[in-house]
Amino acid sequence: MAVAPTAPDVFVRAIEDGGGRYEPDPARARGLQWLGKNPAELRRLLAECPGIEWVQLSGAGVDTWAADGFLSDGRTWTSAKGAYSEPVAEHALALVLALLRSLPTRVRATSWGAQAACTLYDAHVVVVGGSGGIGRELTRLLQPFRARISIARRTPKTEDEHRFDDLPTLLPLADVVVIACALTPQTRNLFDEAILRAMPEHAILVNIARGPVVDTDALVRVLDSGLIAGAGLDVTDPEPLPDGHPLWGRTDCLITPHTADTPEMIRPLLAGRLRENVARMVRGEPLTGVVDPDAGY
Amino acid sequence: MAVAPTAPDVFVRAIEDGGGRYEPDPARARGLQWLGKNPAELRRLLAECPGIEWVQLSGAGVDTWAADGFLSDGRTWTSAKGAYSEPVAEHALALVLALLRSLPTRVRATSWGAQAACTLYDAHVVVVGGSGGIGRELTRLLQPFRARISIARRTPKTEDEHRFDDLPTLLPLADVVVIACALTPQTRNLFDEAILRAMPEHAILVNIARGPVVDTDALVRVLDSGLIAGAGLDVTDPEPLPDGHPLWGRTDCLITPHTADTPEMIRPLLAGRLRENVARMVRGEPLTGVVDPDAGY
Repeated sequence: MAVAPTAPDVFVRAIEDGGGRYEPDPARARGLQWLGKNPAELRRLLAECPGIEWVQLSGAGVDTWAADGFLSDGRTWTSAKGAYSEPVAEHALALVLALLRSLPTRVRATSWGAQAACTLYDAHVVVVGGSGGIGRELTRLLQPFRARISIARRTPKTEDEHRFDDLPTLLPLADVVVIACALTPQTRNLFDEAILRAMPEHAILVNIARGPVVDTDALVRVLDSGLIAGAGLDVTDPEPLPDGHPLWGRTDCLITPHTADTPEMIRPLLAGRLRENVARMVRGEPLTGVVDPDAGY
Repeated sequence: MAVAPTAPDVFVRAIEDGGGRYEPDPARARGLQWLGKNPAELRRLLAECPGIEWVQLSGAGVDTWAADGFLSDGRTWTSAKGAYSEPVAEHALALVLALLRSLPTRVRATSWGAQAACTLYDAHVVVVGGSGGIGRELTRLLQPFRARISIARRTPKTEDEHRFDDLPTLLPLADVVVIACALTPQTRNLFDEAILRAMPEHAILVNIARGPVVDTDALVRVLDSGLIAGAGLDVTDPEPLPDGHPLWGRTDCLITPHTADTPEMIRPLLAGRLRENVARMVRGEPLTGVVDPDAGY
Protein backbone atom coordinates (compact mmCIF):
# COMPACT_ATOMS: atom_id res chain seq x y z
CA MET A 1 0.00 0.00 0.00
CA ALA A 2 1.42 3.37 -1.05
CA VAL A 3 0.74 6.89 0.22
CA ALA A 4 1.04 9.87 -2.13
CA PRO A 5 1.83 12.59 -3.10
CA THR A 6 3.63 12.71 0.27
CA ALA A 7 3.68 9.99 2.91
CA PRO A 8 3.35 11.41 6.44
CA ASP A 9 4.33 8.98 9.20
CA VAL A 10 0.82 8.78 10.61
CA PHE A 11 -0.43 7.13 7.40
CA VAL A 12 2.51 4.78 7.06
CA ARG A 13 1.86 3.68 10.64
CA ALA A 14 -1.86 3.27 9.91
CA ILE A 15 -1.06 0.83 7.11
CA GLU A 16 1.27 -1.17 9.33
CA ASP A 17 -1.16 -1.06 12.28
CA GLY A 18 -3.87 -2.40 9.97
CA GLY A 19 -1.65 -5.39 9.17
CA GLY A 20 -0.64 -4.16 5.70
CA ARG A 21 2.77 -3.48 4.21
CA TYR A 22 3.78 0.09 3.35
CA GLU A 23 5.16 0.28 -0.19
CA PRO A 24 7.22 3.45 -0.81
CA ASP A 25 7.01 2.99 -4.60
CA PRO A 26 3.42 3.41 -5.85
CA ALA A 27 4.33 1.55 -9.06
CA ARG A 28 4.71 -1.59 -6.98
CA ALA A 29 1.59 -1.09 -4.85
CA ARG A 30 -1.92 -2.48 -5.25
CA GLY A 31 -3.52 0.09 -2.97
CA LEU A 32 -3.05 3.85 -2.70
CA GLN A 33 -3.91 6.36 0.02
CA TRP A 34 -4.19 9.54 -2.03
CA LEU A 35 -3.75 12.68 0.06
CA GLY A 36 -3.64 15.17 -2.80
CA LYS A 37 -6.25 17.47 -4.29
CA ASN A 38 -4.95 17.84 -7.84
CA PRO A 39 -6.74 15.59 -10.39
CA ALA A 40 -4.00 15.94 -13.06
CA GLU A 41 -1.40 14.76 -10.57
CA LEU A 42 -3.46 11.71 -9.62
CA ARG A 43 -4.17 10.89 -13.26
CA ARG A 44 -0.45 10.95 -14.00
CA LEU A 45 0.35 8.72 -11.04
CA LEU A 46 -2.36 6.17 -11.89
CA ALA A 47 -1.17 6.03 -15.51
CA GLU A 48 2.27 5.10 -14.25
CA CYS A 49 0.95 2.61 -11.69
CA PRO A 50 -1.40 0.19 -13.45
CA GLY A 51 -1.11 -2.21 -10.49
CA ILE A 52 -3.19 0.05 -8.22
CA GLU A 53 -6.61 -1.56 -7.78
CA TRP A 54 -7.88 0.45 -4.83
CA VAL A 55 -7.64 4.18 -4.10
CA GLN A 56 -8.54 5.56 -0.67
CA LEU A 57 -9.42 9.23 -1.06
CA SER A 58 -9.03 11.67 1.83
CA GLY A 59 -12.29 13.58 1.41
CA ALA A 60 -15.78 12.61 2.55
CA GLY A 61 -17.34 14.12 -0.57
CA VAL A 62 -16.04 12.91 -3.95
CA ASP A 63 -17.84 15.36 -6.24
CA THR A 64 -14.58 16.77 -7.69
CA TRP A 65 -13.26 13.27 -8.50
CA ALA A 66 -16.62 12.20 -9.92
CA ALA A 67 -16.67 15.27 -12.18
CA ASP A 68 -13.24 14.31 -13.48
CA GLY A 69 -14.37 10.78 -14.36
CA PHE A 70 -12.07 8.97 -11.98
CA LEU A 71 -14.65 6.88 -10.20
CA SER A 72 -15.75 4.64 -13.09
CA ASP A 73 -12.26 3.52 -14.15
CA GLY A 74 -12.75 -0.02 -12.88
CA ARG A 75 -10.74 0.50 -9.71
CA THR A 76 -12.28 0.39 -6.25
CA TRP A 77 -12.57 3.91 -4.86
CA THR A 78 -13.19 4.55 -1.19
CA SER A 79 -13.90 7.94 0.30
CA ALA A 80 -13.65 9.01 3.93
CA LYS A 81 -17.46 9.28 4.06
CA GLY A 82 -18.62 9.06 7.65
CA ALA A 83 -15.12 9.49 9.10
CA TYR A 84 -15.46 13.23 9.75
CA SER A 85 -19.10 13.20 10.81
CA GLU A 86 -18.42 14.26 14.38
CA PRO A 87 -16.62 17.58 13.80
CA VAL A 88 -18.89 18.47 10.87
CA ALA A 89 -22.09 17.76 12.79
CA GLU A 90 -20.65 19.77 15.69
CA HIS A 91 -20.03 22.69 13.35
CA ALA A 92 -23.59 22.45 12.03
CA LEU A 93 -24.92 22.62 15.60
CA ALA A 94 -22.62 25.58 16.34
CA LEU A 95 -24.03 27.47 13.34
CA VAL A 96 -27.63 26.57 14.23
CA LEU A 97 -27.27 27.75 17.82
CA ALA A 98 -25.35 30.87 16.78
CA LEU A 99 -28.19 31.92 14.46
CA LEU A 100 -30.97 31.03 16.93
CA ARG A 101 -29.14 33.04 19.60
CA SER A 102 -28.47 36.03 17.26
CA LEU A 103 -24.72 35.77 17.79
CA PRO A 104 -23.86 37.64 14.56
CA THR A 105 -25.66 40.64 16.05
CA ARG A 106 -24.15 40.15 19.51
CA VAL A 107 -20.60 39.83 18.17
CA ARG A 108 -20.92 43.17 16.40
CA ALA A 109 -22.45 44.93 19.41
CA THR A 110 -20.43 47.52 21.30
CA SER A 111 -23.31 48.28 23.64
CA TRP A 112 -25.72 46.22 25.80
CA GLY A 113 -28.67 45.08 23.71
CA ALA A 114 -32.26 43.96 24.16
CA GLN A 115 -33.07 40.38 25.17
CA ALA A 116 -33.90 38.19 22.18
CA ALA A 117 -33.27 34.55 21.38
CA CYS A 118 -34.92 31.49 19.89
CA THR A 119 -34.57 27.99 21.25
CA LEU A 120 -33.72 24.65 19.66
CA TYR A 121 -35.79 22.75 22.24
CA ASP A 122 -38.77 21.08 20.57
CA ALA A 123 -37.84 22.66 17.24
CA HIS A 124 -38.57 20.94 13.93
CA VAL A 125 -35.29 20.28 12.16
CA VAL A 126 -35.20 19.10 8.54
CA VAL A 127 -31.93 17.35 7.69
CA VAL A 128 -31.33 17.11 3.95
CA GLY A 129 -29.18 14.05 3.36
CA GLY A 130 -29.95 12.95 6.86
CA SER A 131 -29.01 9.32 6.37
CA GLY A 132 -25.32 10.03 5.76
CA GLY A 133 -22.79 9.98 8.54
CA ILE A 134 -23.10 13.70 9.27
CA GLY A 135 -26.88 13.59 9.31
CA ARG A 136 -26.90 10.64 11.69
CA GLU A 137 -24.37 12.28 14.01
CA LEU A 138 -26.32 15.55 13.95
CA THR A 139 -29.45 13.63 14.89
CA ARG A 140 -27.55 12.28 17.90
CA LEU A 141 -26.45 15.78 18.97
CA LEU A 142 -30.00 17.10 18.58
CA GLN A 143 -31.58 14.33 20.67
CA PRO A 144 -31.21 16.07 24.06
CA PHE A 145 -33.08 19.09 22.65
CA ARG A 146 -36.13 16.91 21.92
CA ALA A 147 -35.85 18.27 18.37
CA ARG A 148 -38.33 16.73 15.95
CA ILE A 149 -36.16 15.60 13.07
CA SER A 150 -37.34 15.02 9.51
CA ILE A 151 -34.95 13.39 7.13
CA ALA A 152 -35.00 14.02 3.39
CA ARG A 153 -32.84 11.71 1.28
CA ARG A 154 -32.42 10.39 -2.23
CA THR A 155 -34.02 7.04 -1.49
CA PRO A 156 -36.19 6.88 1.65
CA LYS A 157 -35.75 3.59 3.44
CA THR A 158 -38.48 3.91 6.08
CA GLU A 159 -41.95 5.46 6.24
CA ASP A 160 -40.57 8.31 8.39
CA GLU A 161 -38.12 9.41 5.75
CA HIS A 162 -38.85 11.81 2.92
CA ARG A 163 -37.66 12.20 -0.66
CA PHE A 164 -35.94 15.34 -1.90
CA ASP A 165 -39.12 15.81 -3.95
CA ASP A 166 -41.07 16.15 -0.69
CA LEU A 167 -39.16 19.28 0.33
CA PRO A 168 -41.84 21.71 -0.93
CA THR A 169 -44.34 20.26 1.53
CA LEU A 170 -41.83 19.47 4.29
CA LEU A 171 -39.98 22.79 4.50
CA PRO A 172 -42.98 24.98 5.42
CA LEU A 173 -43.07 23.07 8.75
CA ALA A 174 -39.36 23.55 9.50
CA ASP A 175 -37.75 25.77 12.11
CA VAL A 176 -34.23 24.73 11.13
CA VAL A 177 -32.96 23.24 7.85
CA VAL A 178 -29.53 21.61 7.69
CA ILE A 179 -28.04 20.56 4.37
CA ALA A 180 -25.80 17.51 4.86
CA CYS A 181 -26.08 15.69 1.54
CA ALA A 182 -23.50 14.81 -1.07
CA LEU A 183 -23.18 17.08 -4.10
CA THR A 184 -24.55 15.10 -7.03
CA PRO A 185 -26.34 16.05 -10.24
CA GLN A 186 -29.58 15.58 -8.27
CA THR A 187 -28.62 17.86 -5.34
CA ARG A 188 -26.83 20.56 -7.36
CA ASN A 189 -28.99 23.66 -7.06
CA LEU A 190 -31.54 21.65 -5.03
CA PHE A 191 -32.13 24.75 -2.90
CA ASP A 192 -33.26 27.03 -5.68
CA GLU A 193 -35.43 30.08 -5.09
CA ALA A 194 -38.70 28.09 -5.01
CA ILE A 195 -37.38 25.67 -2.38
CA LEU A 196 -35.87 28.49 -0.31
CA ARG A 197 -39.21 30.30 -0.42
CA ALA A 198 -40.91 27.17 0.93
CA MET A 199 -39.15 27.76 4.26
CA PRO A 200 -41.03 29.83 6.85
CA GLU A 201 -39.84 33.38 7.54
CA HIS A 202 -38.63 32.45 11.02
CA ALA A 203 -36.60 29.46 9.79
CA ILE A 204 -32.84 29.26 9.39
CA LEU A 205 -30.76 27.39 6.82
CA VAL A 206 -27.38 25.80 7.56
CA ASN A 207 -25.18 24.30 4.85
CA ILE A 208 -22.18 22.21 5.90
CA ALA A 209 -22.30 20.01 2.75
CA ARG A 210 -21.28 21.62 -0.53
CA GLY A 211 -21.87 25.17 -1.72
CA PRO A 212 -23.55 24.37 -5.07
CA VAL A 213 -26.46 22.58 -3.32
CA VAL A 214 -27.76 26.13 -2.73
CA ASP A 215 -28.39 28.70 -5.45
CA THR A 216 -26.35 31.53 -3.94
CA ASP A 217 -28.08 34.35 -5.86
CA ALA A 218 -31.48 33.02 -4.81
CA LEU A 219 -30.28 32.86 -1.20
CA VAL A 220 -29.25 36.52 -1.33
CA ARG A 221 -32.69 37.41 -2.68
CA VAL A 222 -34.66 35.51 -0.02
CA LEU A 223 -32.46 36.97 2.73
CA ASP A 224 -32.86 40.47 1.30
CA SER A 225 -36.64 39.97 1.24
CA GLY A 226 -36.73 38.60 4.79
CA LEU A 227 -38.26 35.36 3.50
CA ILE A 228 -36.02 33.31 5.81
CA ALA A 229 -34.49 34.42 9.10
CA GLY A 230 -30.87 33.56 8.43
CA ALA A 231 -28.25 31.32 6.90
CA GLY A 232 -25.12 29.68 8.28
CA LEU A 233 -22.73 28.59 5.55
CA ASP A 234 -19.53 26.60 5.96
CA VAL A 235 -19.52 26.09 2.20
CA THR A 236 -20.38 28.53 -0.56
CA ASP A 237 -20.71 28.77 -4.32
CA PRO A 238 -18.39 30.14 -5.52
CA GLU A 239 -15.89 28.99 -2.92
CA PRO A 240 -13.99 30.77 -1.56
CA LEU A 241 -16.71 33.43 -1.46
CA PRO A 242 -15.15 36.44 -3.19
CA ASP A 243 -14.51 39.70 -1.36
CA GLY A 244 -17.34 42.18 -1.78
CA HIS A 245 -19.97 39.44 -2.21
CA PRO A 246 -23.40 40.50 -0.88
CA LEU A 247 -23.38 37.62 1.66
CA TRP A 248 -20.49 39.18 3.60
CA GLY A 249 -21.04 41.46 6.56
CA ARG A 250 -24.72 40.86 7.30
CA THR A 251 -26.27 39.78 10.61
CA ASP A 252 -28.54 37.25 8.91
CA CYS A 253 -25.67 35.32 7.35
CA LEU A 254 -22.85 33.62 9.21
CA ILE A 255 -20.03 32.38 6.98
CA THR A 256 -17.19 30.09 8.04
CA PRO A 257 -14.43 29.18 5.56
CA HIS A 258 -15.06 25.43 5.02
CA THR A 259 -13.61 24.78 8.42
CA ALA A 260 -16.08 22.33 9.96
CA ASP A 261 -13.30 19.77 9.85
CA THR A 262 -9.80 21.20 9.95
CA PRO A 263 -6.67 19.37 8.74
CA GLU A 264 -5.73 18.80 12.40
CA MET A 265 -9.13 17.16 13.05
CA ILE A 266 -9.09 15.17 9.83
CA ARG A 267 -5.62 13.62 10.03
CA PRO A 268 -6.21 11.14 12.90
CA LEU A 269 -9.72 10.33 11.64
CA LEU A 270 -8.49 9.58 8.11
CA ALA A 271 -5.57 7.55 9.47
CA GLY A 272 -8.11 5.55 11.50
CA ARG A 273 -10.20 4.93 8.39
CA LEU A 274 -7.10 3.85 6.43
CA ARG A 275 -6.06 1.46 9.21
CA GLU A 276 -9.57 0.00 9.27
CA ASN A 277 -9.68 -0.48 5.50
CA VAL A 278 -6.21 -2.02 5.32
CA ALA A 279 -7.29 -4.47 8.03
CA ARG A 280 -10.47 -5.26 6.09
CA MET A 281 -8.44 -5.77 2.90
CA VAL A 282 -6.05 -8.11 4.74
CA ARG A 283 -9.01 -10.09 6.15
CA GLY A 284 -10.76 -10.13 2.77
CA GLU A 285 -13.73 -8.16 4.10
CA PRO A 286 -15.65 -5.46 2.22
CA LEU A 287 -14.07 -2.00 2.52
CA THR A 288 -15.75 0.89 4.33
CA GLY A 289 -16.71 3.95 2.32
CA VAL A 290 -16.80 2.36 -1.14
CA VAL A 291 -18.00 4.96 -3.62
CA ASP A 292 -20.98 4.20 -5.84
CA PRO A 293 -20.08 6.01 -9.08
CA ASP A 294 -23.74 6.15 -10.14
CA ALA A 295 -24.92 7.73 -6.89
CA GLY A 296 -21.89 10.04 -6.78
CA TYR A 297 -20.96 9.31 -3.14
CA MET B 1 -53.25 32.92 45.65
CA ALA B 2 -52.51 36.40 44.29
CA VAL B 3 -50.36 37.55 41.37
CA ALA B 4 -48.67 40.97 41.48
CA PRO B 5 -47.73 43.62 40.49
CA THR B 6 -49.79 42.67 37.44
CA ALA B 7 -51.71 39.47 36.90
CA PRO B 8 -51.34 38.15 33.33
CA ASP B 9 -53.89 35.52 32.34
CA VAL B 10 -51.31 32.77 31.98
CA PHE B 11 -50.53 32.94 35.72
CA VAL B 12 -54.17 33.16 36.80
CA ARG B 13 -54.83 30.07 34.70
CA ALA B 14 -51.79 28.31 36.19
CA ILE B 15 -53.24 28.79 39.71
CA GLU B 16 -56.60 27.45 38.65
CA ASP B 17 -55.06 24.56 36.69
CA GLY B 18 -53.07 23.66 39.81
CA GLY B 19 -56.30 23.35 41.74
CA GLY B 20 -55.93 26.64 43.61
CA ARG B 21 -58.14 29.71 43.79
CA TYR B 22 -57.00 32.97 42.24
CA GLU B 23 -57.42 35.87 44.68
CA PRO B 24 -57.39 39.28 42.98
CA ASP B 25 -56.79 41.07 46.29
CA PRO B 26 -53.32 40.23 47.71
CA ALA B 27 -54.48 41.36 51.16
CA ARG B 28 -56.81 38.37 51.27
CA ALA B 29 -54.30 35.85 49.85
CA ARG B 30 -51.99 33.39 51.62
CA GLY B 31 -49.73 32.89 48.62
CA LEU B 32 -48.24 35.35 46.14
CA GLN B 33 -46.72 34.95 42.69
CA TRP B 34 -44.45 38.00 42.53
CA LEU B 35 -43.58 39.01 38.99
CA GLY B 36 -41.88 42.31 39.83
CA LYS B 37 -38.23 43.26 40.15
CA ASN B 38 -38.50 46.23 42.53
CA PRO B 39 -37.70 45.35 46.18
CA ALA B 40 -39.33 48.51 47.61
CA GLU B 41 -42.57 47.66 45.82
CA LEU B 42 -42.59 44.11 47.19
CA ARG B 43 -41.75 45.34 50.69
CA ARG B 44 -44.72 47.74 50.58
CA LEU B 45 -47.06 45.01 49.35
CA LEU B 46 -45.97 42.49 51.99
CA ALA B 47 -46.39 45.10 54.75
CA GLU B 48 -49.98 45.58 53.63
CA CYS B 49 -50.61 41.83 53.27
CA PRO B 50 -49.59 40.09 56.52
CA GLY B 51 -51.58 37.01 55.48
CA ILE B 52 -49.08 36.05 52.75
CA GLU B 53 -47.13 33.04 53.97
CA TRP B 54 -45.55 31.97 50.70
CA VAL B 55 -43.95 34.01 47.91
CA GLN B 56 -43.12 32.45 44.56
CA LEU B 57 -40.41 34.55 42.91
CA SER B 58 -40.00 34.62 39.15
CA GLY B 59 -36.20 34.38 38.97
CA ALA B 60 -33.98 31.31 39.26
CA GLY B 61 -31.32 33.27 41.17
CA VAL B 62 -32.42 35.11 44.31
CA ASP B 63 -29.24 37.07 45.04
CA THR B 64 -30.96 40.46 44.79
CA TRP B 65 -33.76 39.42 47.21
CA ALA B 66 -31.24 37.83 49.57
CA ALA B 67 -29.20 41.04 49.62
CA ASP B 68 -32.34 42.97 50.59
CA GLY B 69 -33.03 40.66 53.52
CA PHE B 70 -36.36 39.32 52.25
CA LEU B 71 -35.59 35.63 52.52
CA SER B 72 -35.30 35.31 56.31
CA ASP B 73 -38.60 37.01 57.15
CA GLY B 74 -40.25 33.79 58.28
CA ARG B 75 -42.24 33.32 55.07
CA THR B 76 -41.64 30.46 52.66
CA TRP B 77 -39.83 31.74 49.58
CA THR B 78 -39.66 29.70 46.41
CA SER B 79 -37.56 30.62 43.38
CA ALA B 80 -37.86 29.34 39.85
CA LYS B 81 -34.57 27.47 40.26
CA GLY B 82 -34.35 24.65 37.77
CA ALA B 83 -37.31 25.89 35.74
CA TYR B 84 -35.22 27.71 33.12
CA SER B 85 -32.39 25.20 32.95
CA GLU B 86 -33.06 24.18 29.38
CA PRO B 87 -32.74 27.54 27.60
CA VAL B 88 -29.86 28.62 29.84
CA ALA B 89 -27.89 25.40 29.29
CA GLU B 90 -28.59 25.75 25.57
CA HIS B 91 -27.17 29.28 25.63
CA ALA B 92 -24.09 28.05 27.48
CA LEU B 93 -23.53 25.42 24.77
CA ALA B 94 -24.07 28.06 22.06
CA LEU B 95 -21.36 30.26 23.62
CA VAL B 96 -18.97 27.31 24.08
CA LEU B 97 -19.32 26.18 20.47
CA ALA B 98 -19.12 29.75 19.16
CA LEU B 99 -15.79 30.28 20.92
CA LEU B 100 -14.37 26.86 19.96
CA ARG B 101 -15.35 27.54 16.36
CA SER B 102 -13.93 31.13 16.38
CA LEU B 103 -17.31 32.59 15.41
CA PRO B 104 -16.47 36.09 16.76
CA THR B 105 -13.67 36.20 14.17
CA ARG B 106 -15.83 34.66 11.43
CA VAL B 107 -18.71 37.07 12.02
CA ARG B 108 -16.39 40.05 11.57
CA ALA B 109 -14.76 38.64 8.43
CA THR B 110 -15.45 40.23 5.05
CA SER B 111 -13.08 37.87 3.28
CA TRP B 112 -12.53 34.09 3.18
CA GLY B 113 -10.25 33.05 6.05
CA ALA B 114 -7.92 30.22 6.99
CA GLN B 115 -9.26 26.95 8.40
CA ALA B 116 -9.15 26.86 12.19
CA ALA B 117 -11.43 25.34 14.81
CA CYS B 118 -11.36 23.42 18.06
CA THR B 119 -13.72 20.59 18.94
CA LEU B 120 -15.86 19.82 21.96
CA TYR B 121 -15.57 16.06 21.38
CA ASP B 122 -13.63 14.42 24.21
CA ALA B 123 -12.99 17.83 25.79
CA HIS B 124 -12.68 18.26 29.54
CA VAL B 125 -15.45 20.56 30.74
CA VAL B 126 -15.47 21.94 34.29
CA VAL B 127 -18.95 23.02 35.38
CA VAL B 128 -18.89 25.33 38.39
CA GLY B 129 -22.15 24.85 40.24
CA GLY B 130 -22.72 21.73 38.21
CA SER B 131 -25.28 20.19 40.53
CA GLY B 132 -27.90 22.88 39.93
CA GLY B 133 -30.55 22.55 37.28
CA ILE B 134 -28.50 24.34 34.62
CA GLY B 135 -25.39 22.29 35.34
CA ARG B 136 -27.34 19.05 35.14
CA GLU B 137 -29.03 20.06 31.90
CA LEU B 138 -25.72 21.17 30.40
CA THR B 139 -24.26 17.78 31.33
CA ARG B 140 -27.09 16.19 29.37
CA LEU B 141 -26.40 18.36 26.30
CA LEU B 142 -22.67 17.57 26.49
CA GLN B 143 -23.16 13.80 26.70
CA PRO B 144 -23.18 13.13 22.93
CA PHE B 145 -19.81 14.90 22.66
CA ARG B 146 -18.24 12.38 25.07
CA ALA B 147 -17.13 15.43 27.06
CA ARG B 148 -15.41 14.55 30.31
CA ILE B 149 -17.29 16.62 32.87
CA SER B 150 -15.94 17.69 36.24
CA ILE B 151 -18.36 19.27 38.66
CA ALA B 152 -17.30 21.81 41.29
CA ARG B 153 -19.92 22.68 43.90
CA ARG B 154 -20.31 24.06 47.39
CA THR B 155 -20.84 20.68 49.01
CA PRO B 156 -19.70 17.66 46.99
CA LYS B 157 -22.10 14.75 47.37
CA THR B 158 -20.12 12.03 45.58
CA GLU B 159 -16.45 11.14 45.19
CA ASP B 160 -16.52 12.41 41.60
CA GLU B 161 -17.52 15.92 42.62
CA HIS B 162 -15.13 18.68 43.64
CA ARG B 163 -15.28 21.62 46.03
CA PHE B 164 -14.87 25.21 44.91
CA ASP B 165 -11.60 25.04 46.86
CA ASP B 166 -10.38 22.36 44.42
CA LEU B 167 -10.55 24.75 41.44
CA PRO B 168 -6.82 25.64 41.53
CA THR B 169 -5.93 21.99 40.87
CA LEU B 170 -8.94 21.21 38.66
CA LEU B 171 -8.81 24.14 36.26
CA PRO B 172 -5.33 23.44 34.79
CA LEU B 173 -6.86 20.29 33.27
CA ALA B 174 -9.86 22.06 31.72
CA ASP B 175 -10.54 22.81 28.08
CA VAL B 176 -13.85 24.52 28.81
CA VAL B 177 -15.08 26.12 32.05
CA VAL B 178 -18.76 26.94 32.49
CA ILE B 179 -19.95 28.97 35.48
CA ALA B 180 -23.49 27.91 36.43
CA CYS B 181 -23.58 28.53 40.18
CA ALA B 182 -25.73 30.81 42.29
CA LEU B 183 -24.27 34.16 43.33
CA THR B 184 -23.61 33.88 47.06
CA PRO B 185 -21.05 35.42 49.41
CA GLN B 186 -18.93 32.32 48.69
CA THR B 187 -19.09 32.57 44.89
CA ARG B 188 -18.83 36.37 44.60
CA ASN B 189 -15.46 37.03 42.96
CA LEU B 190 -14.74 33.27 42.99
CA PHE B 191 -13.03 33.71 39.60
CA ASP B 192 -10.38 36.18 40.71
CA GLU B 193 -7.11 36.65 38.87
CA ALA B 194 -5.42 33.66 40.54
CA ILE B 195 -8.26 31.29 39.61
CA LEU B 196 -8.45 32.65 36.06
CA ARG B 197 -4.69 32.15 35.71
CA ALA B 198 -5.13 28.51 36.75
CA MET B 199 -6.91 27.88 33.43
CA PRO B 200 -4.74 26.70 30.51
CA GLU B 201 -4.02 29.18 27.72
CA HIS B 202 -6.16 27.21 25.27
CA ALA B 203 -9.16 27.07 27.60
CA ILE B 204 -12.34 29.13 27.34
CA LEU B 205 -14.60 30.48 30.09
CA VAL B 206 -18.37 30.80 29.80
CA ASN B 207 -20.50 32.55 32.42
CA ILE B 208 -24.27 32.16 32.25
CA ALA B 209 -24.74 32.52 36.02
CA ARG B 210 -24.16 35.97 37.53
CA GLY B 211 -21.61 38.60 36.54
CA PRO B 212 -20.01 39.15 39.98
CA VAL B 213 -18.83 35.51 40.16
CA VAL B 214 -16.02 36.75 37.88
CA ASP B 215 -13.66 39.63 38.68
CA THR B 216 -14.16 41.59 35.48
CA ASP B 217 -10.92 43.59 35.69
CA ALA B 218 -8.95 40.39 36.25
CA LEU B 219 -10.70 38.81 33.23
CA VAL B 220 -9.65 41.75 31.04
CA ARG B 221 -6.06 41.31 32.23
CA VAL B 222 -5.88 37.56 31.56
CA LEU B 223 -7.47 38.04 28.12
CA ASP B 224 -5.07 40.88 27.34
CA SER B 225 -2.16 38.65 28.36
CA GLY B 226 -3.42 35.68 26.34
CA LEU B 227 -3.59 33.58 29.51
CA ILE B 228 -6.95 32.10 28.43
CA ALA B 229 -8.25 31.70 24.90
CA GLY B 230 -11.60 33.41 25.26
CA ALA B 231 -14.68 34.23 27.30
CA GLY B 232 -18.38 33.99 26.59
CA LEU B 233 -20.45 36.12 28.95
CA ASP B 234 -24.22 36.28 29.18
CA VAL B 235 -23.83 38.13 32.49
CA THR B 236 -21.33 40.82 33.42
CA ASP B 237 -20.26 42.98 36.34
CA PRO B 238 -21.25 45.72 36.08
CA GLU B 239 -24.41 44.77 34.21
CA PRO B 240 -25.32 46.09 31.75
CA LEU B 241 -21.72 46.32 30.63
CA PRO B 242 -21.14 50.05 29.99
CA ASP B 243 -20.33 51.40 26.54
CA GLY B 244 -16.61 51.72 25.95
CA HIS B 245 -15.75 48.89 28.36
CA PRO B 246 -12.57 47.02 27.31
CA LEU B 247 -14.53 43.74 26.95
CA TRP B 248 -16.50 45.10 23.98
CA GLY B 249 -15.40 44.57 20.41
CA ARG B 250 -12.77 41.86 20.85
CA THR B 251 -12.62 38.48 19.11
CA ASP B 252 -11.72 36.67 22.34
CA CYS B 253 -14.84 37.83 24.16
CA LEU B 254 -18.42 37.14 23.15
CA ILE B 255 -21.00 39.09 25.13
CA THR B 256 -24.76 38.49 25.10
CA PRO B 257 -27.10 40.76 27.07
CA HIS B 258 -28.40 38.38 29.79
CA THR B 259 -30.57 36.75 27.19
CA ALA B 260 -30.03 33.03 27.83
CA ASP B 261 -33.66 32.89 28.89
CA THR B 262 -35.88 35.55 27.35
CA PRO B 263 -39.22 36.71 28.79
CA GLU B 264 -40.96 34.72 26.03
CA MET B 265 -39.11 31.56 27.06
CA ILE B 266 -39.57 32.18 30.78
CA ARG B 267 -43.31 32.85 30.87
CA PRO B 268 -44.60 29.34 30.11
CA LEU B 269 -41.87 27.73 32.23
CA LEU B 270 -42.66 29.94 35.25
CA ALA B 271 -46.38 29.37 34.79
CA GLY B 272 -45.66 25.63 34.81
CA ARG B 273 -43.67 25.95 38.02
CA LEU B 274 -46.47 28.00 39.64
CA ARG B 275 -49.07 25.42 38.59
CA GLU B 276 -46.91 22.66 40.04
CA ASN B 277 -46.38 24.46 43.33
CA VAL B 278 -50.05 25.36 43.72
CA ALA B 279 -50.90 21.70 43.18
CA ARG B 280 -48.31 20.69 45.78
CA MET B 281 -49.69 23.25 48.21
CA VAL B 282 -53.24 21.92 47.67
CA ARG B 283 -52.05 18.34 48.23
CA GLY B 284 -49.99 19.36 51.26
CA GLU B 285 -46.73 18.32 49.60
CA PRO B 286 -43.38 20.13 49.91
CA LEU B 287 -42.96 22.95 47.38
CA THR B 288 -40.38 22.88 44.59
CA GLY B 289 -37.62 25.50 44.60
CA VAL B 290 -37.77 26.44 48.29
CA VAL B 291 -34.95 28.90 48.98
CA ASP B 292 -32.45 28.14 51.73
CA PRO B 293 -31.69 31.64 53.10
CA ASP B 294 -28.34 30.45 54.53
CA ALA B 295 -27.15 28.95 51.24
CA GLY B 296 -28.49 31.92 49.28
CA TYR B 297 -30.29 29.84 46.64
